[in-house]
Amino acid sequence: MNLAEHPTTTQGVTTERYRSVRQHTEQLCAPLKPEDYVPQGAEFASPPKWHLAHTSWFFEEMVLKHTAGYQEFHPKFSFLFNSYYQAVGERAVRGQRGLMTRPTVDEVYAYRAHVDAAMQRLIEVGLTDVQQPVVELGLQHEQQHQELLLTDLKYTLSLNPIYPVYAPEGSRLDDRSQGQEWETVPEGIYTVGHDGQGFHFDNERGQHRVFLEPFKVRKGLVTNGEYLAFIQDGGYQKPEYWLDEGWAHLQANGLSQPLYWEQRDGVWHQFTLDGLQPLHPEAELGHVSYYEAQAFATWKGARLLTEFEWEAAQDRFTWGTRWEWTQSAYLPYPGFAAAEGALGEYNGKFMINQMVLRGASVATAPGHSRKTYRNFFHPHFAWQYTGIRLAQWL
Amino acid sequence: MNLAEHPTTTQGVTTERYRSVRQHTEQLCAPLKPEDYVPQGAEFASPPKWHLAHTSWFFEEMVLKHTAGYQEFHPKFSFLFNSYYQAVGERAVRGQRGLMTRPTVDEVYAYRAHVDAAMQRLIEVGLTDVQQPVVELGLQHEQQHQELLLTDLKYTLSLNPIYPVYAPEGSRLDDRSQGQEWETVPEGIYTVGHDGQGFHFDNERGQHRVFLEPFKVRKGLVTNGEYLAFIQDGGYQKPEYWLDEGWAHLQANGLSQPLYWEQRDGVWHQFTLDGLQPLHPEAELGHVSYYEAQAFATWKGARLLTEFEWEAAQDRFTWGTRWEWTQSAYLPYPGFAAAEGALGEYNGKFMINQMVLRGASVATAPGHSRKTYRNFFHPHFAWQYTGIRLAQWL
Amino acid sequence: MNLAEHPTTTQGVTTERYRSVRQHTEQLCAPLKPEDYVPQGAEFASPPKWHLAHTSWFFEEMVLKHTAGYQEFHPKFSFLFNSYYQAVGERAVRGQRGLMTRPTVDEVYAYRAHVDAAMQRLIEVGLTDVQQPVVELGLQHEQQHQELLLTDLKYTLSLNPIYPVYAPEGSRLDDRSQGQEWETVPEGIYTVGHDGQGFHFDNERGQHRVFLEPFKVRKGLVTNGEYLAFIQDGGYQKPEYWLDEGWAHLQANGLSQPLYWEQRDGVWHQFTLDGLQPLHPEAELGHVSYYEAQAFATWKGARLLTEFEWEAAQDRFTWGTRWEWTQSAYLPYPGFAAAEGALGEYNGKFMINQMVLRGASVATAPGHSRKTYRNFFHPHFAWQYTGIRLAQWL
Amino acid sequence: MNLAEHPTTTQGVTTERYRSVRQHTEQLCAPLKPEDYVPQGAEFASPPKWHLAHTSWFFEEMVLKHTAGYQEFHPKFSFLFNSYYQAVGERAVRGQRGLMTRPTVDEVYAYRAHVDAAMQRLIEVGLTDVQQPVVELGLQHEQQHQELLLTDLKYTLSLNPIYPVYAPEGSRLDDRSQGQEWETVPEGIYTVGHDGQGFHFDNERGQHRVFLEPFKVRKGLVTNGEYLAFIQDGGYQKPEYWLDEGWAHLQANGLSQPLYWEQRDGVWHQFTLDGLQPLHPEAELGHVSYYEAQAFATWKGARLLTEFEWEAAQDRFTWGTRWEWTQSAYLPYPGFAAAEGALGEYNGKFMINQMVLRGASVATAPGHSRKTYRNFFHPHFAWQYTGIRLAQWL
Repeated sequence: MNLAEHPTTTQGVTTERYRSVRQHTEQLCAPLKPEDYVPQGAEFASPPKWHLAHTSWFFEEMVLKHTAGYQEFHPKFSFLFNSYYQAVGERAVRGQRGLMTRPTVDEVYAYRAHVDAAMQRLIEVGLTDVQQPVVELGLQHEQQHQELLLTDLKYTLSLNPIYPVYAPEGSRLDDRSQGQEWETVPEGIYTVGHDGQGFHFDNERGQHRVFLEPFKVRKGLVTNGEYLAFIQDGGYQKPEYWLDEGWAHLQANGLSQPLYWEQRDGVWHQFTLDGLQPLHPEAELGHVSYYEAQAFATWKGARLLTEFEWEAAQDRFTWGTRWEWTQSAYLPYPGFAAAEGALGEYNGKFMINQMVLRGASVATAPGHSRKTYRNFFHPHFAWQYTGIRLAQWL
Repeated sequence: MNLAEHPTTTQGVTTERYRSVRQHTEQLCAPLKPEDYVPQGAEFASPPKWHLAHTSWFFEEMVLKHTAGYQEFHPKFSFLFNSYYQAVGERAVRGQRGLMTRPTVDEVYAYRAHVDAAMQRLIEVGLTDVQQPVVELGLQHEQQHQELLLTDLKYTLSLNPIYPVYAPEGSRLDDRSQGQEWETVPEGIYTVGHDGQGFHFDNERGQHRVFLEPFKVRKGLVTNGEYLAFIQDGGYQKPEYWLDEGWAHLQANGLSQPLYWEQRDGVWHQFTLDGLQPLHPEAELGHVSYYEAQAFATWKGARLLTEFEWEAAQDRFTWGTRWEWTQSAYLPYPGFAAAEGALGEYNGKFMINQMVLRGASVATAPGHSRKTYRNFFHPHFAWQYTGIRLAQWL
Repeated sequence: MNLAEHPTTTQGVTTERYRSVRQHTEQLCAPLKPEDYVPQGAEFASPPKWHLAHTSWFFEEMVLKHTAGYQEFHPKFSFLFNSYYQAVGERAVRGQRGLMTRPTVDEVYAYRAHVDAAMQRLIEVGLTDVQQPVVELGLQHEQQHQELLLTDLKYTLSLNPIYPVYAPEGSRLDDRSQGQEWETVPEGIYTVGHDGQGFHFDNERGQHRVFLEPFKVRKGLVTNGEYLAFIQDGGYQKPEYWLDEGWAHLQANGLSQPLYWEQRDGVWHQFTLDGLQPLHPEAELGHVSYYEAQAFATWKGARLLTEFEWEAAQDRFTWGTRWEWTQSAYLPYPGFAAAEGALGEYNGKFMINQMVLRGASVATAPGHSRKTYRNFFHPHFAWQYTGIRLAQWL
Repeated sequence: MNLAEHPTTTQGVTTERYRSVRQHTEQLCAPLKPEDYVPQGAEFASPPKWHLAHTSWFFEEMVLKHTAGYQEFHPKFSFLFNSYYQAVGERAVRGQRGLMTRPTVDEVYAYRAHVDAAMQRLIEVGLTDVQQPVVELGLQHEQQHQELLLTDLKYTLSLNPIYPVYAPEGSRLDDRSQGQEWETVPEGIYTVGHDGQGFHFDNERGQHRVFLEPFKVRKGLVTNGEYLAFIQDGGYQKPEYWLDEGWAHLQANGLSQPLYWEQRDGVWHQFTLDGLQPLHPEAELGHVSYYEAQAFATWKGARLLTEFEWEAAQDRFTWGTRWEWTQSAYLPYPGFAAAEGALGEYNGKFMINQMVLRGASVATAPGHSRKTYRNFFHPHFAWQYTGIRLAQWL
């Protein structure tokens, strides 16, 4: 059962839906001051201003520029707000997104309004069969950036020694775990991947059969308290639990606890969107890397699920509060072929050195999750709302 | 059909077999001058002297030190020649293996003789049930280092502008490809992994069932000539064929052809163990990275096999001259659990960010290959004798 | 003759002077939007917000905290806005100054107002003999940061592909050179360094005698047109003109023209605080590194002055529009000893690997220059308004 | 008084002198095994084999190639053994000198013999006026490399955990200091630099006058015992004694004692060419960086000499056992101009970011020192036999 799952429109995009998704992005920015929109906390974490502009750029570049009579907002924005599409041409250096003081925040909102006006005219007139899936993709893309906007912002704020508050009661990390019972899943041939009905990304396509050996899966995610026991047992000092590159990552970065955790006067806290808060032992653990998830599981005498086991078992537990690291590398499904042109760069070219996460998180946009959804990150990243679900062989 | 496969002893290790494996390492070093034994061409490529010593260290550390009355050869060698076993204690900095002028080559051979004498006494007396599998592992380990010794040496020699010759007629790269026909493999449940009879590494264990969708596989490996056509079609200048990290790797290192390839006066050559030699278009391509293998396959409208498809199909084609990159990440099989102690570090801790290669190569030790063998390297590495086998969906 | 020289107060600091210096900093920020205050274009270039806060921190840390009854503005600011004073305690990571979204610009101005109110009360009551020189130093320090604020801002804006304008008619780079005549300076013993009357930094103290061999110096600074001739003669492709580390710096950074220069449709432009502007050949060259200054002089059959020659000759030419690279390393004068405590870190600890610049520039605060003033930067830096004055041996 | 000074030939180079210098290099290598000739312990430290070949290359490239009838030994050696002469053409990557297994040591000795035979014929026939100074420079150059050969070798051996012995009784670090008395040097105009009679490097030329303020200099160099007191007083933990870049260097490299010092079971040792040896408190300190020299002097309430003070005072103390760091940056003397062509690259292009050392050391070749000799290194280097002489203002 996915707490966040909502019916996805399979019919055409309406102006109402378009407006609703676009407004949600702006609502997320409501608590921000102009200064908050600017910095890039790390190469992987883009500024809010960039997210606001880039999601608009997607509609301008992929839809509006191919529409007769459209007046480009600014001739340089195509260059400034391209993320990684090689086919679209040159783009600004990724690590310098936080150095662009101009356009100002007001100008970026004006850009959004300009794009929205043109898009809404287009939708009212009626999207063509070519435009319809691209606009839908643009909205899904914007929802992905809504989650990144929050997680990137959290990361940047966390680097500030005065620990700013984004929004009171916005910590998003107090979900109680669903307990430590195990479910058994029998061996058999299971069908995984999206059936092609309704919206899905190209990396989910290619529904196919897999044979699974029988296994057990835990109903509840790992809690802060369980993870604390791992730390207190010396988990970060014992190489035997860690992958070799995980151990090297710990040493190189001097890590001895998860991202955002901090002991203050002997009490464990974690940095949240509500500032620094005491850690609740019974709440679900968040913000761990794959390395940490794998090491914890090994210490616990368990393992992570593969993404296929996850999909086969997902209706036996509650999910949707943490992205769950799986033991599957991000690789193409049978029959996968990237689309032609710029949109073909959406997913396929990242299929190396990344691990699949399944589920969704408290920061995922409403309606933006599916049991076939394949999220993916490099194994050292922990700035998403990631968690651990344990599995075992029978 | 594996050109290199030989019956593996399932009975105990004999002094004859011990001597034969150990001598083969030394035979590989016969053409070397003392100077050749010293340098480390890159962090990933160890010096011949180190390989000679480390393979002896394995027997000393894992077997002889646990034997009553054994006299250690040198108190510091345990530190000097440990590769990566955290459980064994501190070890020398990996990148400084080429800075150890002492022990000299003669002393390392004396170390080998010392270990061999003790080991042979032990084998003659009769190995215990505990020793038997460790000694077998030590021999398999030595065979793995035989291949590395050659590939590491080749890499180091290639950095010398005067292109030294290791051994005339030792180029090992002139195998003709087996042609461009395709074989079709039907869908079904296949059993993969080692059945546990006879020697195997822990990462092959866990025989299990997989369901495969139907596919086609090419009988012959990709040739130099085919790859040249990719280059001439601008393959290294077109991002659309490459994984994002593969493309970044090309740019960061200024690559526009495979490792060891060089155009001289308009004629393509490749550096071999026999010095710089003209490239034969009809010979099997060697020394490509996963990035190159994947990009070539995409350009060709094909793909790589998964390791499971490879294992299911391997009796339908000839293999054993090039390690074949698969589209599978190196991950644990069902039921995998690393052994306790130092030997548990042999394989499991490397299961991240590496891709599986199947088969064997012209540099693989005789008798050291199996259809279930899982070799693995990071996707940017090309200094092994790696090649490309194409597959397609039906 | 120094175009920028003004009488320096030798009497006590008045509220008028305090207010005038402090207001000048804020006037420099008048054209800025909140977004402009935030980013740090490079580790060496601090954000405007940081300059505004750090100059206030100086007064708070060095004066007000030692004053009975002073109420600190914020307990964390001492940490956030310390630049490099080890004696004052921990400080924020230098490279992360651009990641602090909070305090906001408004809060920083409130901080300035808080400090100013307390300082003005103190000055009105009358500064003690201990406070007086520290307050004077604080004002001189603020004037130094006024120049950095402009040059850092210019650097950050230059990284933005849309080339923002800071202030129309603010290019500050159109000064005509004073011509190519030479002045001869006779050999002799000259006295250099500050005589101790009136304000000066500790690195100028230690007036002493130097013997100078006779030399010639050019009255006018090198022009853009002269430097263009160097470029067109292949100056950036010929190692013989360059110091070894200068040449390596060119290669590592792919440099073939000065910072901010750019050829657009065959016409040379330079980025200025007034945006991208055509280059005027007869105007004084700006923004060159020591490496470029030295290479140009060598190409021209000339050399740079030492700082002692410069000081001995400075009344024979007009200066004050460009910081002039000298051929002197930044080292202590006879009798130099750093002060006790935090203020002792002001200058002395930087006396290594930096070259002295003499004079002042169009961005130097009014009244903030002296013939004995010793500015200093690493030889690869070019983001100050630096220029070249040629000398020759007789 | 320079312990090592010998009369330098001002007349022509004789075959006897040529042979004597060349043989000394080979004598230094007498204790080496072939393996010792190969590795490069760091980018700054070349292998013995490279020193042997490069010093021969100098004669071949600068003299023999311009001689009718000379037969080059190997067409690639000009490329392999060029150090840094841009005018001579391409050269091998500096950091890869230790990867060249071939030519072998024997081949390099054959190269030396080939060059020597041709050189000796040339000298017997009689050198031309053009050849004479280049051959003299070649011998002086070889003497410089004799010192580097020893110091580079020592550095490489020190990285080996088994601490090999180069030569018993070769520690070269047991010289007793000449005591703690001070000499006073009066103010006045002093003449410094070489007068042009007899051999000298171009960077010594340009004899000129300097005015010196009066100062005191200590007769004896700093001892191990004095430096130990600095360590025990927390010298490596207190930033106030260190230059800012010196302190950063300590932190980045985790330094808390000089290069080669090591505490073993509570007893201080230092690595020497005679292996690890107990530290003698009364012996002269060796192997300190400029940063360490400057910090120690500051802690001691003293300072280093300038190179001009050193030269003016050098006959008042004994020197020649340690290179003495001065407080002078390496910069051109009045009238300095590099020679045309490759030999012009000998010295001038390194005049940035380096500090001058005066004197000579226990590793300096006999006869290869002068009171006007200017040695120079970057301030963080400590692998030469460097020491500290203290000075004070009156």
